This record gives sequence, C-alpha cells and structure tokens, in this order.
Amino acid sequence: MKKHYSEQLAGLRELVLRMGGLVEQMTRRVVQALVERDVGILPEVRAMETQVNQLHIEIDEMCIELIALRQPAAVDLRFIAAAMKINTDMERIGDQAINITERAEVLLTVPPLKPLIDIPRMADIAQEMLKASLDAFVNGDDALALETIRRDDEVDQLKDQVFRELLTYMMADPSTIPRAMELILVSRHLERIGDHATNICEDVIFMVKGKDVRHQGPLA
Amino acid sequence: MKKHYSEQLAGLRELVLRMGGLVEQMTRRVVQALVERDVGILPEVRAMETQVNQLHIEIDEMCIELIALRQPAAVDLRFIAAAMKINTDMERIGDQAINITERAEVLLTVPPLKPLIDIPRMADIAQEMLKASLDAFVNGDDALALETIRRDDEVDQLKDQVFRELLTYMMADPSTIPRAMELILVSRHLERIGDHATNICEDVIFMVKGKDVRHQGPLA
Repeated sequence: MKKHYSEQLAGLRELVLRMGGLVEQMTRRVVQALVERDVGILPEVRAMETQVNQLHIEIDEMCIELIALRQPAAVDLRFIAAAMKINTDMERIGDQAINITERAEVLLTVPPLKPLIDIPRMADIAQEMLKASLDAFVNGDDALALETIRRDDEVDQLKDQVFRELLTYMMADPSTIPRAMELILVSRHLERIGDHATNICEDVIFMVKGKDVRHQGPLA
Repeated sequence: MKKHYSEQLAGLRELVLRMGGLVEQMTRRVVQALVERDVGILPEVRAMETQVNQLHIEIDEMCIELIALRQPAAVDLRFIAAAMKINTDMERIGDQAINITERAEVLLTVPPLKPLIDIPRMADIAQEMLKASLDAFVNGDDALALETIRRDDEVDQLKDQVFRELLTYMMADPSTIPRAMELILVSRHLERIGDHATNICEDVIFMVKGKDVRHQGPLA
C-alpha cells in the first residue's frame, strides 16, 4: 500500500486497457488465420489467452483490494465496479477467440468451402465495437458507448445472413455440411464478441451516468 | 438505511436465490415445452425473463449501495462481490433460456425430427448444476462447488454427442437440416447454462477460500 490512491486507480485503468488490447488482438489474429489459411497464427492466439487469464485474476484482485483498503467514494466505486464487470466480459471475449481458434484448427485441415461470406465483415464490426467500448470506458464517454451499442444490430443481421446462406449450401450439397457447420459456429462466436462489447458499453453508461440502461428494450 | 446491516445482507442473499429460482424454472419449463411439444408454455418463460431483468438491476444496485454506505470488511466484501458476479451469470442463464425459447418457437411449428436425443438429459444436468451452485453459494459450501464444476464435462460430452448424431442425420437426409440445426443450437445454449453454473461455483470458491480457482486447467 505504498502507492498513492490515484496512481492505483490509474494502474487499474491501464490493466483493463492491456487486457482489452490482448483480446482485440486475439480476435483479429484468429480471423486473419482463417482468411489467409495460415495455421501458424493459431498457437500465438492460444499463448495470448494465457496472459488474458492471468490479467483476469489480477484485475479482480486489484478491484477487491482497492475497495477493501481505500473505501472509495461513489464515483470511484462505480469506476471500480465497472472495471470488475468489464473484466468478466473481456475474459469471455478471450474464450470466444479460443472457440474460433478450435474451429479454425478444423477448418484449416480441409479444403475451403468458398470465400468466407460475411464472416470477415462481422469480425471487423465486432472488433470496432470492442475498441470503441474500451475507448468509452477510458474517457468516460457515454455518448460513444450508446452509439456502439446500436452497432450490435449490424452484427446480428450479418449472423442471420451467414446462417441463411450456409443453410442453402448445405441443403444443395450435403458434403458441405461439416464445413458449413464450423463456419456457422464461427459466426456465432463473433456475434457473442459483439454482445460482450455491448455489455461493456452498458457498464460504461452506468459508470458515467449512475444509471442503468440495461433491459430497456430498443434504444431510442 | 433504516435496516440493520445483517438484515441487508440476508436480503441480498434472498434476492439472489429468488433470481436463481426463476432462471432455473425458465430452463426447466422451456425444455418441458420442447419435450411435450406444448407451445403454450413459451409465453410463461418470456414473462419470467421480465422479472429476471428487474432483479438483475435490483441486485447490482443493492450491492453498490451496501459497499458504498457500509464499507464492509473483507469477508462481507467477498460475499457482496460474489453476489454481483453471480448476478451477471444468472441474468445470462435467463438469456440462454430465452434463446432456447426462440428455437422452440420454430421447432414447435414443424413436425418433430425424432425424440430429442440427449437434449433432455443435458437440460437435467445443467439444471442440477445450477441448483447445486446456488446451494453452494447460500451455504458457503466450497466442496459442493468443486464437485459441481466437475460435472461440466458431462454436459460438454453430451453436447458433442448430440452434434455428431445430428450431423449424421443431416448428411443422410438434407431435408432434416433446418430442424437439426435448431436442435444443435438448443444443445449449445444448454451447454452455456452449464458454463454459467460453473462460473457461479468458481465465484463461491473465491468467496469461501479467498482463493482464485479460475484458469487452473483441469481440477485434480
């Protein structure tokens, strides 16, 4: 407990950003592996997950310690509570990137089905959402958080489109079923990354406004 | 702030249990709808989600208020932090039950593919895990939590088995693809309910032991 309180808060913010950067990179690299059919990228993604898991524990411990020893006032408490929640979502984004890695490990051993339809586009939007959600957290920017939440519909629509397209493929030629199934799963994992980014944005709005925007139905 | 502190903690425990009971019931009822092909159950599941969403907000607010105004000591702080995390997982179990409801709304408008393979069995185990995880939380029973975490492998194996079996179906008869896909998605939503129950158990162990058992690989 030698460090100054504000330094500790800054340290927490920094850890959250480092972890966010890692899960963003995991997502980007695994999709790159799929697009470029480069199986050599995959062990790198798995190695990053080990770091993410370590940070997950470190951030939680730092939050508990800060609350226990510093008894933070309302604003700081909301910041720390948001960091704990965002920590959970980032760790699960890492899990999703690992799920995609597992699918890629299968897909890269068989001939490609066809270009990856809208999967790279889905990945781009999910990554942009994640990046924006972390920017919103660091800058306490609730307007950016709200704007980012709205983008989740794009990801959902692309997921439905990918699903319909691959269903047509499978019905026309059953030999494509196993590969098409893998791609459908990849698109669902990407969708969930978008969902986690949305959760992060909701936590940012709660932190900034002290108001809960969850479960309000479609945002105006 | 008229209530006594210990009453407030008891009130928090009660809210967590009420929410746990609700998401457990949502899971049970939606699988019952699938098994009995009873579409009339589905609106009831959706109605329960509204209550779950309300409790999700209430529990978070209660936790923040308790921390801010009572400045709890280490043991109570770990209890409150666990409640916040468990709250998130329970809300997402409710989301999964709603995802299954959406699949059921499709599946119950078409002729059945065949008996539901191991899906009811998966649902049973996921529900047992959820119930055990909440018992472990209320009783601070880390042994039960650890035992419950180990059951997650059963759910994962059943999910793989359901997947392989439905893949065979689809390849033999492409007309079954849309229905088989819906069932595969149902099994994945059930798997995620098992994952959330596992997360709850990890939080219970952290609460009881003050030790982080996450990311330790297979438990001995």
